[in-house]
Amino acid sequence: MPEPSAPPSPLKEFRRSIDNLDATLIYVLAERFRLTKRVGEYKRDEGLPSSDHGREAEQIARLKALAVEADLDPEFAERFLRFVIDEVIRHHERIRKETA
Amino acid sequence: MPEPSAPPSPLKEFRRSIDNLDATLIYVLAERFRLTKRVGEYKRDEGLPSSDHGREAEQIARLKALAVEADLDPEFAERFLRFVIDEVIRHHERIRKETA
Repeated sequence: MPEPSAPPSPLKEFRRSIDNLDATLIYVLAERFRLTKRVGEYKRDEGLPSSDHGREAEQIARLKALAVEADLDPEFAERFLRFVIDEVIRHHERIRKETA
Repeated sequence: MPEPSAPPSPLKEFRRSIDNLDATLIYVLAERFRLTKRVGEYKRDEGLPSSDHGREAEQIARLKALAVEADLDPEFAERFLRFVIDEVIRHHERIRKETA
């Protein structure tokens, strides 16, 4: 057991902050999927296609610009959004099939 | 041009919220990479390995539990964390090589 007055290790301190940010990411992603679920239902009801390449291109361009401002690799930001959108499209196709 | 009193389309409203959440995700990810950069420098200076499988297993278990609470697919949460950690390990290896 460490001494009560022992300073916390730098690695432990960094990891606590990383864990807090990861919890934020999970909750924001959960909310994002709640919204895209509603988008999927709306698209199904209106007979709109699951994917929209024009919208995706706009999202990617916007997020890459935000990434540059935040000093995050814009190529990583693009891969990240693609990773999320691919999951959303899978969900939309599932929503469509459930009621087909 | 729409009438000033025209109600906004549901799709447009959802997309504005999604865009706000995406900006949040980009800024939180940018801060996460700032922290893992410092972790990488610390590990290099202390001669610690880039990856730590025990830590990763703990992170995955914790985030899957948070995902369940947030009603997010825990398998997606795991793939998401793996996607981010793989990028972090690439960064750590680059940090190590820069000063090798």
